[in-house]
Amino acid sequence: MTGPVRVCPECGRQFEFTDPAWRCCGVPMRLAEPPAAPVPPAELAGRPLTTWRYAEALGVPAELWRSATLGEGITPLLSAGDDISVKVEYAAPTLSFKDRGVVLLIVQALAAGASKVIADSSGNAGTAVAAYAARVGLPAEIFVPDSTSPKKIAQVRAHGASVNLVPGNREATAAAAIEAVEAGDSFYASHVYNPVFHLGTATYGFEVWEQLGGRLPETLVLPVGNGTLVLGVTRAVAGLLAAGLIPTAPRIVAVQAANCAPLAAAWRTGSAKPLAVESSPTIAEGIAIAAPARGAEILAAVDEIVTVTEEQVLAGRSELARRGWYVEDTAAVCWAAARASYGAWGEVVVPLSGAGLKTGWTPASPA
Amino acid sequence: MTGPVRVCPECGRQFEFTDPAWRCCGVPMRLAEPPAAPVPPAELAGRPLTTWRYAEALGVPAELWRSATLGEGITPLLSAGDDISVKVEYAAPTLSFKDRGVVLLIVQALAAGASKVIADSSGNAGTAVAAYAARVGLPAEIFVPDSTSPKKIAQVRAHGASVNLVPGNREATAAAAIEAVEAGDSFYASHVYNPVFHLGTATYGFEVWEQLGGRLPETLVLPVGNGTLVLGVTRAVAGLLAAGLIPTAPRIVAVQAANCAPLAAAWRTGSAKPLAVESSPTIAEGIAIAAPARGAEILAAVDEIVTVTEEQVLAGRSELARRGWYVEDTAAVCWAAARASYGAWGEVVVPLSGAGLKTGWTPASPA
Repeated sequence: MTGPVRVCPECGRQFEFTDPAWRCCGVPMRLAEPPAAPVPPAELAGRPLTTWRYAEALGVPAELWRSATLGEGITPLLSAGDDISVKVEYAAPTLSFKDRGVVLLIVQALAAGASKVIADSSGNAGTAVAAYAARVGLPAEIFVPDSTSPKKIAQVRAHGASVNLVPGNREATAAAAIEAVEAGDSFYASHVYNPVFHLGTATYGFEVWEQLGGRLPETLVLPVGNGTLVLGVTRAVAGLLAAGLIPTAPRIVAVQAANCAPLAAAWRTGSAKPLAVESSPTIAEGIAIAAPARGAEILAAVDEIVTVTEEQVLAGRSELARRGWYVEDTAAVCWAAARASYGAWGEVVVPLSGAGLKTGWTPASPA
Repeated sequence: MTGPVRVCPECGRQFEFTDPAWRCCGVPMRLAEPPAAPVPPAELAGRPLTTWRYAEALGVPAELWRSATLGEGITPLLSAGDDISVKVEYAAPTLSFKDRGVVLLIVQALAAGASKVIADSSGNAGTAVAAYAARVGLPAEIFVPDSTSPKKIAQVRAHGASVNLVPGNREATAAAAIEAVEAGDSFYASHVYNPVFHLGTATYGFEVWEQLGGRLPETLVLPVGNGTLVLGVTRAVAGLLAAGLIPTAPRIVAVQAANCAPLAAAWRTGSAKPLAVESSPTIAEGIAIAAPARGAEILAAVDEIVTVTEEQVLAGRSELARRGWYVEDTAAVCWAAARASYGAWGEVVVPLSGAGLKTGWTPASPA
């Protein structure tokens, strides 16, 4: 059962795909393989209408992928006027881009012979892990903060997963999940620690490239909290460059909420590591990560990091709805940033990362 | 500006695509054009990853379609074990299959030079009309029963549409919308009365055919209320047959909720028209249509009509969630029917028509 090998960036130890180890030397692992690319556009043409058209870049066993997929990917890319296009990532099996990565975590869980998976998330990742684990019949335990809405808990339970309500903040939830992983033999389906996730989110980049007729736009604007999308897309760009399928790399702009922006603060000061900043609550809860475990990796991967205010997010969400896209608050950050750039980034593509029904309409919204 | 011509089945009068007339002789119009088919699979291979790959069968102006599309279609088709596959129709711009048809209603509104659109719906169609009207910048007025949930109303308003709350039942809402259409010069974006809608839902059939490698399954199981999906898919089948792209027609089985089953009652007695039946409330509210305007047309189009109980719908929804698909109650009826057929239909494909977050999880559900 071959698949992507992982490596510890501290000690250099390598881990086979079938090895469920999730951490080494206290830091997140990286992928050992060099970034790969899909086959050229002419060869893609006749392939199935699924992300398996990029099989060479996924690098996982076909039979496991087939049993785990829920049909993630192949989302619409549409012009929103002028130089801005949106990629409708919420037209997905669990209504967020997280599906692209979670399917591969579950593939690895199968390859590792796991009898159970554990995940921690207050939002889209937890829902996705519950759904994909259900798809393959693996028991799942999802750790969530005890403040999580009953509606989200009901969805996770509907998928047959058990829900573990943890008192305290998001960090306490992660700690409880890790404790359970360490204490037993469950597979840790972590979108933060497992770099296999990035092989899945790389398909976002491949799709934009294919949908634009074999090229990338001048700028890719991406949300950043733990960097699950940024690290996949920058890998896709590297793969396309190495294969000679694009002539130059696009500008990668990452967006944080001003209320919680450790990476933007580091970028402004030239720091290679995220800064300890004072953060306050933000409606962009999907990227509200005060201490991102892969902060240095993200800072090295992007060209620019900007922030958006709460007001910009709300206005952006309303603007998107007035154009036909009903998104959750977090999904409006890239649109808001691109609109505020006053055209400085040239042709841009922004993802609409999660559906509006996931959170409903914020009462304070200007709609 | 050419496009599909409509015809009155009573008097034979024809209506150009640019003509906004929505009714003639008191009955719904039909399409005058014979059913069309996509190009053969080999030619489809290199086409864009959108429903425009079936442009020949859509038959509408390219530039209008491009401005109105939100990326509907190209939804996943996945094996759910044994002889049953699901088509994940909720992985769509407004999270239901209605998008396939609504995009073409809005294309026609543009072709007709409409300055405003009106629709009546308590559910997925109203949301979709609001979103697609927003996409093209057309003002929209959506009539809904005054019992509609605040969350749905908030979504429609977020798209910039005005909401007209009508006291009474679903029929009163339709009557109020029709009164407003008759009194003014708004375009009636009706998924019930406008047969252009079926050109859009036909793409469901084309996709299944393409995704199965240029064939259809033994049986297509479809939900039926007003028949918006059934009448599109049977048209797709006729087009594929006429073009010699399939050798024989699949069995078309339509599913109603036992609590509201005027078409199933007619089918059982051999009646060519829907029977007046006593109906009671059903959780499958998306197909709870006591007097379908196109009843006779539907009865002539399908091979069999079956019913499912409330308990079967709830159990079906739970089964689907346990396999990774979180759907609204109505979206479970075809799965429930196929499971109850005990394999009598051979290889079947069922649509998962709407997302679970649209309604949340029914408290009475066995999950």
